[in-house]
Amino acid sequence: MHVWLNGEYRTAENAFVPVTDRGFLLGDGFFETMRAHRGNVAWLHAHMERLAAHANVIGLPSNLLPSASDVAGIIAKLCKQADLTRAVVRMSVSRGSGPRGLLPPAPPTPTVLITVALFSPTLPSDGLNLITAQKIRRNPWSVAGTIKSLNYLDNIVAKQEAHQAGGDDALILSVDGSVAETTIANLFGIKDGVLWTPDASTGILCGLARTFVINCAKANRIETRFDSHTPGQLADMDMMFTANALQGLRPVATLDGKAICTNRPPQDIFVKLAQMVEGNLCNGI
Amino acid sequence: MHVWLNGEYRTAENAFVPVTDRGFLLGDGFFETMRAHRGNVAWLHAHMERLAAHANVIGLPSNLLPSASDVAGIIAKLCKQADLTRAVVRMSVSRGSGPRGLLPPAPPTPTVLITVALFSPTLPSDGLNLITAQKIRRNPWSVAGTIKSLNYLDNIVAKQEAHQAGGDDALILSVDGSVAETTIANLFGIKDGVLWTPDASTGILCGLARTFVINCAKANRIETRFDSHTPGQLADMDMMFTANALQGLRPVATLDGKAICTNRPPQDIFVKLAQMVEGNLCNGI
Repeated sequence: MHVWLNGEYRTAENAFVPVTDRGFLLGDGFFETMRAHRGNVAWLHAHMERLAAHANVIGLPSNLLPSASDVAGIIAKLCKQADLTRAVVRMSVSRGSGPRGLLPPAPPTPTVLITVALFSPTLPSDGLNLITAQKIRRNPWSVAGTIKSLNYLDNIVAKQEAHQAGGDDALILSVDGSVAETTIANLFGIKDGVLWTPDASTGILCGLARTFVINCAKANRIETRFDSHTPGQLADMDMMFTANALQGLRPVATLDGKAICTNRPPQDIFVKLAQMVEGNLCNGI
Repeated sequence: MHVWLNGEYRTAENAFVPVTDRGFLLGDGFFETMRAHRGNVAWLHAHMERLAAHANVIGLPSNLLPSASDVAGIIAKLCKQADLTRAVVRMSVSRGSGPRGLLPPAPPTPTVLITVALFSPTLPSDGLNLITAQKIRRNPWSVAGTIKSLNYLDNIVAKQEAHQAGGDDALILSVDGSVAETTIANLFGIKDGVLWTPDASTGILCGLARTFVINCAKANRIETRFDSHTPGQLADMDMMFTANALQGLRPVATLDGKAICTNRPPQDIFVKLAQMVEGNLCNGI
């Protein structure tokens, strides 16, 4: 793995952060996961906008982040060094080091880390098998959970639960028991030609792919609903799929071991949306 | 600051973790904050038990952690090196490095970091001024929030809010609006000789000092209640105080700018409990 850390190119084995870094000690930071083809990052400007928005949310001056053109140049160089045609890129930002305690130093000196690795889609051939998380639920009143923060322990626990039950990922509920998202993606359903996705008020991270899908649907005059659903109500969907900016759209095969949309025709809406997302990601726009 | 990192003694300026550490990338770990007097750690065994319990919760084999006697020796040596009579000790554990993705490596190689710094109590002379957090609330369905995890961004945001409003710390509510805790301590109230503290079901981190206070109260035949309170109901308390294993018990002076327990007599119960906690912490038992 090749990395760029605070202005220097290194191999991952030779890149370190101080033990005083607030990212390590307190999870004080955020990140973006992006896809790059031949060194070009898909949705770069949207990702950079979100990084700036996240910085604002936690009170980190966003002018301390590298510019979009700098980031594009760094990623292109990293992909070339690593000889990667298809890459997964992670850009992590922490508030850097500071004195003891929760209050951030003013001004902070952020740690910025950009890594690239081979992107190899790992879709199970017949769709994702989701397991409803029993130990954790989403909290609409969490900053850490509603931005792409470095606070991922709840997702790790949910992923472990799903894995131990033989699933690919977890279906995570909101504190009120309504369906929210997975550990790494937003959720969508299709029912009688209408799209459905959980509302932002469930405490989800509203991903770029989610926004893209909703906008594509609108442009194609497909209605999108945002009402609350229990996991039991998902059995009524014609199909379910997940969406994120790395893997695009992925159909859900089962929930807690029960097939979803068995014997139902392929959904034209899904095929159309998936092609639009994938085309858009591949073109690096 | 002097540190011990994975078996080596270093100065903080010369101690680093790899950028692949899951503590930095994902907040995949936990910590303890302890107090040491002349190199002896107060409540060491209780802290070590909690570290082991936290390890179990996230599926990290607790036999990968150093033993209590090893930790005691390390802290004594660090305090001696740094010439600290009164020290605040932080022991941080992350799941170490692993491949991309949320699933932990099996077996993991944890990162263990122990740091010591000067302990100087910073109690405002007339008690703490608390500000009710508006941006974040506690989630009873969070593993990251109910263990002392590396996921502290919500606490940072709440602390910033309190600081900007001129307060010392935040009063954090649970998702249902009931009073939960502060960013770094559990909360207690006293009313007509009865002790009150929020129930664990509010999504709090149940601290060692909280348990100690509850046990002291029981031994002294003081009733403790755990019922739900809104912030408005706290005005009826005769007094409020916070509890943690570092600073012991600290009285609350104001909540959102309004005095608490104005013109009320000092609370014998508080004085007694505070002396017991402080005596216990100072004796390093």
